[in-house]
Amino acid sequence: MVAPTVKLNNGREMPIVGFGLWKVDNATCADTVYNAIKSGYRLFDGACDYGNETESGQGVKRAIDEGLVKREDLFIVSKLWNSFHDKEQVAPICKKQLADWGVDYFDLYIIHFPIALKYVDPKTRYPPGFFYEDDKLAFSKTSLAETYSAMEELYELGLIKSLGISNYNGALMLDLFRYAKQVPQTLQIEHHPYLTQEGLVGICKEHDVAVTAYSSFGPASFVELNMQKAKDTPLLFDHEVIKTISEKHSKTPAQVLLRWSTQRGIAVIPKSNNQNRLAQNLDVCSFDLSEDELKKISALDQNMRFNNPVNYGINIPIFA
Amino acid sequence: MVAPTVKLNNGREMPIVGFGLWKVDNATCADTVYNAIKSGYRLFDGACDYGNETESGQGVKRAIDEGLVKREDLFIVSKLWNSFHDKEQVAPICKKQLADWGVDYFDLYIIHFPIALKYVDPKTRYPPGFFYEDDKLAFSKTSLAETYSAMEELYELGLIKSLGISNYNGALMLDLFRYAKQVPQTLQIEHHPYLTQEGLVGICKEHDVAVTAYSSFGPASFVELNMQKAKDTPLLFDHEVIKTISEKHSKTPAQVLLRWSTQRGIAVIPKSNNQNRLAQNLDVCSFDLSEDELKKISALDQNMRFNNPVNYGINIPIFA
Repeated sequence: MVAPTVKLNNGREMPIVGFGLWKVDNATCADTVYNAIKSGYRLFDGACDYGNETESGQGVKRAIDEGLVKREDLFIVSKLWNSFHDKEQVAPICKKQLADWGVDYFDLYIIHFPIALKYVDPKTRYPPGFFYEDDKLAFSKTSLAETYSAMEELYELGLIKSLGISNYNGALMLDLFRYAKQVPQTLQIEHHPYLTQEGLVGICKEHDVAVTAYSSFGPASFVELNMQKAKDTPLLFDHEVIKTISEKHSKTPAQVLLRWSTQRGIAVIPKSNNQNRLAQNLDVCSFDLSEDELKKISALDQNMRFNNPVNYGINIPIFA
Repeated sequence: MVAPTVKLNNGREMPIVGFGLWKVDNATCADTVYNAIKSGYRLFDGACDYGNETESGQGVKRAIDEGLVKREDLFIVSKLWNSFHDKEQVAPICKKQLADWGVDYFDLYIIHFPIALKYVDPKTRYPPGFFYEDDKLAFSKTSLAETYSAMEELYELGLIKSLGISNYNGALMLDLFRYAKQVPQTLQIEHHPYLTQEGLVGICKEHDVAVTAYSSFGPASFVELNMQKAKDTPLLFDHEVIKTISEKHSKTPAQVLLRWSTQRGIAVIPKSNNQNRLAQNLDVCSFDLSEDELKKISALDQNMRFNNPVNYGINIPIFA
């Protein structure tokens, strides 16, 4: 099973289901990626900040060496971390990340957050995280427009085949459309039935920017992180609306949540450490929810966001 | 009675209570402004979009001519409308607005929305509103950074004594701090107990940007506009928490709502067509709410926003 693709605004094809590498631990990461490729995954969503790009690359290499796939069959995504927003840091860090993966281009490279932090030398600490030192935040002097322009240069150089942003809100997108020489190919955002983001998704549709959902299962991802807000919220897996629909289709609640997203045209990047669920998550375009079911799920919207720096005790209220 | 002032980051003093000119009708506007000055108001919060700058200026002129105040006693605020974001339009429209008011500088000039619309010649239509023609939106190609830079030039020229933005969110503020040559003096936002905006207010405090609240009474302002969301929301004036506190202090609910804001250090710009309420609204620094009362009011927060273009059927989801 291989996922269907969505056509990006530059003509390239992106799998609508991929494998998210956030929180995949280093010890098992290479095997996980290798097994995911075996199961049919072609898109891998990585990032400097996930701290596992080298291991991810090892999994990719093994699969290619064994002839399971060729590089061009894969869609490798990485992200520019906040502390590399300065114009002169963008290309060097992208090249380091490519070297970590052992590839010579990314299929998609994304500005991870609309947050420009002061540069931290990778020799000092990598990945650098949010804090400059101890628990202190330090900001860079680089605007989002300048960083975006540096990303456009990577695109022109062919180091990245598509260009994306993540965690941008409506007003930031509108401003981006003003200063961008080329419209981005994708926006990656938190998106699940408790946070349906109609307005933002609407702007993206209008401008032909593909949307990728992260945390498609809502609170579940953040319970793992021990986030109180997530623990206080009923899991979507246990929600009556989701359970009823999943029973009707003889699918798991996870499959219903992913299908709700892909049927809205929004790509997904679930993660699983379990081989069986990994296959199930990929098999989410083989059944259709009815209009009524889609609406019932969308009606669960509470504008409830978990992946907010503020929820991790980091005082950068980008969503305020 | 004259309101106390807050000191802006450029050393200038801004009254913490002013008079908001939104929805003040043209027929009565000159008298309203004149009477407000008589009652002690010194700050007037106007805007191109309110369509009453000429009449506001007439009220000011009468008061000055009669010797009630001098120009330098007043703090006149105006705003740059969305369709004048293009660099080359900023100074001409500011000068037109100054001429309408009959003054030679604004004490504060504010970017009204983080929305850059296509230029509409004032000879064609003024104020131009959101639509380019009929019900069609058309955007400008100017980024917020470019518009801000043009505003900074007005400041350097002395046409405006302070510089502000309005309706910016947290991520936009962070980006602004990157590209601004000078930090703005104020941010004006919707702010009431249903929308306390802790994160955004926090960023402003950190960067010494004064905050001005509009729509301090919450839904009440929007019921006038027949907005369904406002009609569906219990009025703050009738809310048990507000009523109890207002009775305890022998103040009106409106006075309690304004005091809650000013005691948080946030300036207010209420409007009233009623001479008695006009005086009451100005008298909101003569009593103090207890810490506990402030907290109880803040606890009414529901992150509920009314003044969103989307709520007027205008598809510009800046707050999405």
